[in-house]
Amino acid sequence: MSFIEQLNWRYATKRMVADKAVPQEKVNAIIEATRLSASSYGLQPYNLLVIQDKELLQKIQAIAYNQPQIGETSTLLVFAAWDKPTQERIDTFFNFIASERGIPVEALAGYKSMVEGKIGSLDEVSAFNWMAHQTYLALGTALAAAAIEQVDATPMEGFNPAALDELLGLSEKGLKSVVILPLGYRDEANDPLANAKKVRKSTEDFVVSL
Amino acid sequence: MSFIEQLNWRYATKRMVADKAVPQEKVNAIIEATRLSASSYGLQPYNLLVIQDKELLQKIQAIAYNQPQIGETSTLLVFAAWDKPTQERIDTFFNFIASERGIPVEALAGYKSMVEGKIGSLDEVSAFNWMAHQTYLALGTALAAAAIEQVDATPMEGFNPAALDELLGLSEKGLKSVVILPLGYRDEANDPLANAKKVRKSTEDFVVSL
Repeated sequence: MSFIEQLNWRYATKRMVADKAVPQEKVNAIIEATRLSASSYGLQPYNLLVIQDKELLQKIQAIAYNQPQIGETSTLLVFAAWDKPTQERIDTFFNFIASERGIPVEALAGYKSMVEGKIGSLDEVSAFNWMAHQTYLALGTALAAAAIEQVDATPMEGFNPAALDELLGLSEKGLKSVVILPLGYRDEANDPLANAKKVRKSTEDFVVSL
Repeated sequence: MSFIEQLNWRYATKRMVADKAVPQEKVNAIIEATRLSASSYGLQPYNLLVIQDKELLQKIQAIAYNQPQIGETSTLLVFAAWDKPTQERIDTFFNFIASERGIPVEALAGYKSMVEGKIGSLDEVSAFNWMAHQTYLALGTALAAAAIEQVDATPMEGFNPAALDELLGLSEKGLKSVVILPLGYRDEANDPLANAKKVRKSTEDFVVSL
């Protein structure tokens, strides 16, 4: 199946076969793709939480409009952005690049001041939105990987982020939840959208050529 | 090459071989993947501009910190979000779904009021940020497709969005530029990053298991 066929195959699954677990090897491939995602400056201002505990999943379902997929999935990914792009985090990032590439951190001074300039130009809300943009980019990579692995995945914004942050102890980690993604297998018998036509703007309406 | 290998292969190319054009068939595959990207509610609150005119590319380069890849590429993709999620746009979206699926638009009333409720809850800045999030999700899909096609692609936020919107007449189209993406082939002789180690957080630092 080509990537285009895989993208046509995927959809935001409304019902998943209860407890039909995605093999850990496929979960790991999706996590690894997400880890390798592009992000602005390579900063990766986010983390990925992998939740497989049934009791915790039920608590999350309760603060996510009781969406059935969260009760049916065996693996929920939570994409959480940094709460703030602190100087300490930026320093850690540049020290890590220098160490990985075996160069002095001073060799990265121009690059570092570019990142600091960008982040310094943003107020707190804009900084968080910029980090959330990067988180959605990583979500795009995760969805591509899931489609390639023929695993269903339903991106969800419909949950109470403050309650989820509290439940998962995210503020102690300096994180805020942005979007969540249950993984599983479509329940064709119970999902009315399983065989609905995929609707996307036509190429003519989508693309402007100049 | 597996998808993980393709993601390891890709990087934000700093120099592209000048005028080594990406075959139109590969450009089309990347555009098609972007068109098929997931987006919240399936709304696709963005368009893709495909720019291949050399003179226009030079003008864009001048308002993008003169980044060399824009002078070297033969195809630049501009990801532009809607300026506002107007009621007219929402109506058009629901009429289109109904027509594509051969159902009366009234059958989508619950779904429509959910979308209207979400959008109505956002102030103008939050609405734009939410649409920009979806645009980054589409960017993630485009980058996956480019890696699969073995085409280099460099996401860029470093440009003057107001000047680009003016140059491309985007405000007349009800659009605002969000991120741009030149496509091409890495110039290994001139790109100091062509052979640099890819740096990503370790799995231990990236993933939190619960």
